[in-house]
Amino acid sequence: MGSLETEKTIIGWAARDPSGVLSPYTYTLRNTGPEDVLIKVTYCGICHTDLHQIKNDLGMSHYPMVPGHEVVGEVVEVGSDVSKVRVGDCVGVGVIVGCCRSCRPCQSDIEQYCSKKIWSYNDVYTDGKPTQGGFAESMIVDQKFVLKIPDGMAPEQAAPLLCAGVTVYSPLSHFGLKKSGLRGGILGLGGVGHMGVKIAKAMGHHVTVISSSDRKREEAMDHLGADDYLVSSDSTRMQEAADSLDYIIDTVPVFHPLEPYLSLLKLDGKLILMGVINTPLQFVTPMVMLGRKIITGSFIGSMKETEEMLEFCKENGLTSMIEMVKMDYVNTALERLEKNDVRYRFVVDVAGSKLDQ
Amino acid sequence: MGSLETEKTIIGWAARDPSGVLSPYTYTLRNTGPEDVLIKVTYCGICHTDLHQIKNDLGMSHYPMVPGHEVVGEVVEVGSDVSKVRVGDCVGVGVIVGCCRSCRPCQSDIEQYCSKKIWSYNDVYTDGKPTQGGFAESMIVDQKFVLKIPDGMAPEQAAPLLCAGVTVYSPLSHFGLKKSGLRGGILGLGGVGHMGVKIAKAMGHHVTVISSSDRKREEAMDHLGADDYLVSSDSTRMQEAADSLDYIIDTVPVFHPLEPYLSLLKLDGKLILMGVINTPLQFVTPMVMLGRKIITGSFIGSMKETEEMLEFCKENGLTSMIEMVKMDYVNTALERLEKNDVRYRFVVDVAGSKLDQ
Repeated sequence: MGSLETEKTIIGWAARDPSGVLSPYTYTLRNTGPEDVLIKVTYCGICHTDLHQIKNDLGMSHYPMVPGHEVVGEVVEVGSDVSKVRVGDCVGVGVIVGCCRSCRPCQSDIEQYCSKKIWSYNDVYTDGKPTQGGFAESMIVDQKFVLKIPDGMAPEQAAPLLCAGVTVYSPLSHFGLKKSGLRGGILGLGGVGHMGVKIAKAMGHHVTVISSSDRKREEAMDHLGADDYLVSSDSTRMQEAADSLDYIIDTVPVFHPLEPYLSLLKLDGKLILMGVINTPLQFVTPMVMLGRKIITGSFIGSMKETEEMLEFCKENGLTSMIEMVKMDYVNTALERLEKNDVRYRFVVDVAGSKLDQ
Repeated sequence: MGSLETEKTIIGWAARDPSGVLSPYTYTLRNTGPEDVLIKVTYCGICHTDLHQIKNDLGMSHYPMVPGHEVVGEVVEVGSDVSKVRVGDCVGVGVIVGCCRSCRPCQSDIEQYCSKKIWSYNDVYTDGKPTQGGFAESMIVDQKFVLKIPDGMAPEQAAPLLCAGVTVYSPLSHFGLKKSGLRGGILGLGGVGHMGVKIAKAMGHHVTVISSSDRKREEAMDHLGADDYLVSSDSTRMQEAADSLDYIIDTVPVFHPLEPYLSLLKLDGKLILMGVINTPLQFVTPMVMLGRKIITGSFIGSMKETEEMLEFCKENGLTSMIEMVKMDYVNTALERLEKNDVRYRFVVDVAGSKLDQ
């Protein structure tokens, strides 16, 4: 953007092919333009979508690919027109780093639905260069997509909020469910599900965790504060719970039947899908029609909602439950994530890792 | 209900088995209790659901069964506590004739979602007798489920409004779509679909009829007043129309793919299912999530909404398009309905038919 400086050379950890193994990778960042913020990454969460991307599960992957879209860091340089953050601020970056700014979603501040949105990584930026994510020393991001982490919030705790947190917060807010007294269900207790329990509880809901086995009962009830726990194969309890929930946040990322969960919903209840599943899900129409039930889903949240969510988490003292790892453990962490073996989110201590080895 | 009179003996046309052939059938009605209205049936519409019921397609049919739930008639006797209608009034009866009056839906005036609702026919009334529908000389119905047909509305025109009309009106009203300027799609142009076009147009919408063939283009555009017509197999036009509709009323009563229609919806668009389909329908989650789209459905409408809809139709001069037949033609009419060979609703001139032969 008019600067004659040399582009910044940095190191990140990239996947080189669909094996999805990450290793050190040297690349350049553009110079800091007038609206840009140079961020030194301190922490980066690992999301299930990272797995899909590095392994080309969605058939749209380009390599080398530095994943990571739950990024927390420190501002080290700002462009001349940047007013939103200052050098030294603790900031976050989520799933998108660009949008067209003129379409209906952009004009309505729901830029996550812009058809020209630019993903934090595995995409091409306006300068024609590939975007690269947060498993790296630094990122340069337009100020619109940089969020100030509220004072007093631990940065490593904030990382998972930037995707998992807002992914749950946004539909609850949008679909009129951010009010106390509701009865909600959280289907699946992974990274998104655990934030779902915490956020729904903080909204004053009675929260039932629904899972395929009894394995996470204690964690759900004792550690996360859920009010009830349903095993989906326990037909007696499932039947008792029929017609009892105002909504279900369905975080299951693989094919599953919908009818057992539609049955749990009250009249006008909402089944909100969060998992990207390319195998068709199924339902019979009377299950929906006879209770005017809604099947829907949403995609992360807007910058505005992310700000709101961070404030909400701060006000309510919400933290994520994380397992912190160094970058040299990231491949093991990805393997464990694939087996759902993490409580509940891995966060890479990027600044505390040696990235060049 | 305390009366010592003899029960009324009447003639209706009943199916006797899943062949679904109707023929004269003599049965008795209860006496007119304090809240009851005795109605001399004048007209009765034929709905696609009647076909399902008489042929036991849903596996819940009991015989002999007198179908008909789009009933218009004249009040000939009222119970002592009836205040809603008077002798001589032109009234309508729709799909349900009873509900528990104490559950949440009943308390919220959406008694069509009461789990103890009583269907107009093929159900059992509170007195233990089978309910029988409108293909008959008379019906006795609790005043709660009797509607006054607005003055000046032709009774034969009103019949299809009592099911087809309110089935479309209710979701448009409930889901916040009763406002001008929206762009709607009507998928399938049968009894419900044709009322959909008329009601949506009267609400000030730009209406696109979507059909599997070009066959109904002229009717849709010239006779019903649709603004556009899309053939679902025309991939070029379907692609051009992507992301353009606020809602689609999907009246198709058999299995069909949902994705072509989800694609037509804008961000936050609603696919509203009207067809009872026991073969599972399918969708992939990104189609829903990436546009925060809603798949839902609804079931007829409440008595309150039916009253509103009748007023709305009267104010806007809306009529249904019907083919009037006598009862001795009803079996042929049912056969033609099964082949979708009717523009757009058969109405039986019950009072003008000889029911005993």
